[in-house]
Amino acid sequence: MKFTILRDRLLAGLNDVMKAVSSKTTIPILTGIKIDVTNEGMTLTGSDADITIQTFIPVEENGEQIMDITQTGSIVLQARMYNEIIRKLPTNEVEIEITNGYATIIRSGKSEFHLIGLDATEYPQLPEIAADRQFTIPTDLLKSVIRETVFAVATSESRPVLTGVNWKVEGDALICVATDSHRLARRKVNLENLPNDITSVVIPGKSLNELNKILEDTNNPVQIVLTNQHVLFKTDDVLFFSRLLEGNYPDTSRLIPEEFKTMITINGKSLLQAIDRASLLAREDRNNVVRFETLENQTVEISSNSPEIGKVEEQIQVESLEGENLKISFSAKYMMEALKAIDGQDVVIEFTGAMRPFILRSVADDAILQLILPVRTY
Amino acid sequence: MKFTILRDRLLAGLNDVMKAVSSKTTIPILTGIKIDVTNEGMTLTGSDADITIQTFIPVEENGEQIMDITQTGSIVLQARMYNEIIRKLPTNEVEIEITNGYATIIRSGKSEFHLIGLDATEYPQLPEIAADRQFTIPTDLLKSVIRETVFAVATSESRPVLTGVNWKVEGDALICVATDSHRLARRKVNLENLPNDITSVVIPGKSLNELNKILEDTNNPVQIVLTNQHVLFKTDDVLFFSRLLEGNYPDTSRLIPEEFKTMITINGKSLLQAIDRASLLAREDRNNVVRFETLENQTVEISSNSPEIGKVEEQIQVESLEGENLKISFSAKYMMEALKAIDGQDVVIEFTGAMRPFILRSVADDAILQLILPVRTY
Repeated sequence: MKFTILRDRLLAGLNDVMKAVSSKTTIPILTGIKIDVTNEGMTLTGSDADITIQTFIPVEENGEQIMDITQTGSIVLQARMYNEIIRKLPTNEVEIEITNGYATIIRSGKSEFHLIGLDATEYPQLPEIAADRQFTIPTDLLKSVIRETVFAVATSESRPVLTGVNWKVEGDALICVATDSHRLARRKVNLENLPNDITSVVIPGKSLNELNKILEDTNNPVQIVLTNQHVLFKTDDVLFFSRLLEGNYPDTSRLIPEEFKTMITINGKSLLQAIDRASLLAREDRNNVVRFETLENQTVEISSNSPEIGKVEEQIQVESLEGENLKISFSAKYMMEALKAIDGQDVVIEFTGAMRPFILRSVADDAILQLILPVRTY
Repeated sequence: MKFTILRDRLLAGLNDVMKAVSSKTTIPILTGIKIDVTNEGMTLTGSDADITIQTFIPVEENGEQIMDITQTGSIVLQARMYNEIIRKLPTNEVEIEITNGYATIIRSGKSEFHLIGLDATEYPQLPEIAADRQFTIPTDLLKSVIRETVFAVATSESRPVLTGVNWKVEGDALICVATDSHRLARRKVNLENLPNDITSVVIPGKSLNELNKILEDTNNPVQIVLTNQHVLFKTDDVLFFSRLLEGNYPDTSRLIPEEFKTMITINGKSLLQAIDRASLLAREDRNNVVRFETLENQTVEISSNSPEIGKVEEQIQVESLEGENLKISFSAKYMMEALKAIDGQDVVIEFTGAMRPFILRSVADDAILQLILPVRTY
């Protein structure tokens, strides 16, 4: 293997695949990045066994010569070291050469690095994914769907399947659900060409968070392929593979109440800020619970009380308030995350009593539904 | 105590004094910020016992009404909580009132916080510092002096006096020295009105780092008062008190060699970057040592070798090279920090042999001197 490449383009590619590489891996070769050079260009692969990211750098791009290949080949180089060396090279032209076995030389300006690489044939194979069954979603919509659901996954491993987001196909709708059994986030999206053979998968929350960091805020399509054990997200630049979680995801549809005793419409941003303030005191007691009470005159009161530190009270005007009066307590954290997912619009909150789960949705549409279990304090 | 104040101005003041407050303090009242309101305005004080920062907010500033005082008084409020509450208040007008003992109410918009304060008379008194003996230094020069010396203080507490920077008065010169006994940084500044009674103090490195964060990059004067146990830095907005370190600072002048066998003039930035690259491999072996060797043709070579990972070599053209040939090894970290202190200019490096300390200074002037002890590897 011997080629030259523009440093900045190589760094951009490394930046993508580095996101999959973990320093905590127990598989030594996965601390490395695999480099495959063919006559068409260079493929970089990084992986932590759960997530694998692959990117391709062509010899020529937008009319610019990126690489000059003298000899093709493959090598695995230690990821963090390789990335830092490339980043600190003195010029934008880099020459990389394998001289003898796995001995690799990186040259730039008057700098010369000699690194000991690893055998690329020992790097794990990518899962075989047939690309004939795929559906597409605009990148910005996919990012919204992730942002509106992934925060609600369980962080504890006691029920591993809850650490992922359940993606379910029902006709033309993709329904994404996350729950940690104290709250639930659900997002529906109507899409074309959804698969009809694989209709329910659970994607690890961590994979979706990493994917979200890599995706840019464009409306370019992302192609998605589901298999029984993996999901593949394809953009122009990057292939992102994630392992799926095993196990049956619980049926959450029965958790969502269908009748309501109190219904409030309120500005989401005002409510979010008031709860943020109330949680300043609530947080000190470690439970982070705030109280919510309906008052006269279309007003609700948010309050919190911490005997050692003090208390806070705040009243907010609502847009509308129907049904029974209510006193309820809930986690400020869950409420703030749910309101952030609905993103500052007016929200409708529907309660069925102080001890029953309540739901939040945007006044504009019901594509997003957030459900929270209250806390018993009254 | 009862007054209203503009939130943004209060936040700016809190931002300064919060830098002195440590969550790790063993003195409970120092987790708080002291608030003293007189008819002239509000004084805020924060302290971790070593550093104390005080700032004053006047009733009126630049023709703008900042405060409206109904009743004067004093209270201590838990610092982090107080700061977060003020930051998150819904409007820019804040009312603060002590109602009963130490019970304090903070109101803004429809928010009302009740906090339990502490007795301000139990807050430690500031050291008495007579302001009649002071000298001044432009803020940006003071920041340079700190930046060029403080990085070289010892981090280990085995010789506590070395964790500070020694400020010594010699006639019209202030000489600032820091050393961890492996390297030394010295900066001389000529100033007027230097004290002639207190001629040597040791200021904790931590205090100087905090001071540097607070000082803005202006050429406004900072007034400095030295006493036997404290130093006070006064700017327009802030009083910054630091405890001094006890004990005799070692006489370092004899450490600095006066004769040289090899003298090199070299571009500081090129050398810094080459050592940064070489240290990528050196770091992995934990000792972070790089090699430096004079070659023919006005060239030096920087190299590093890590048997398990690889090696790196780089040649740099020097401006001039006089005297004996040399092979020497040193800590990449110490060398990079010394070069950063000299700040990218051409540097003169004077060596007395591979086992003897060597010194660096700017080609432009000798106000800054950096000394490094080599490491035995050849």
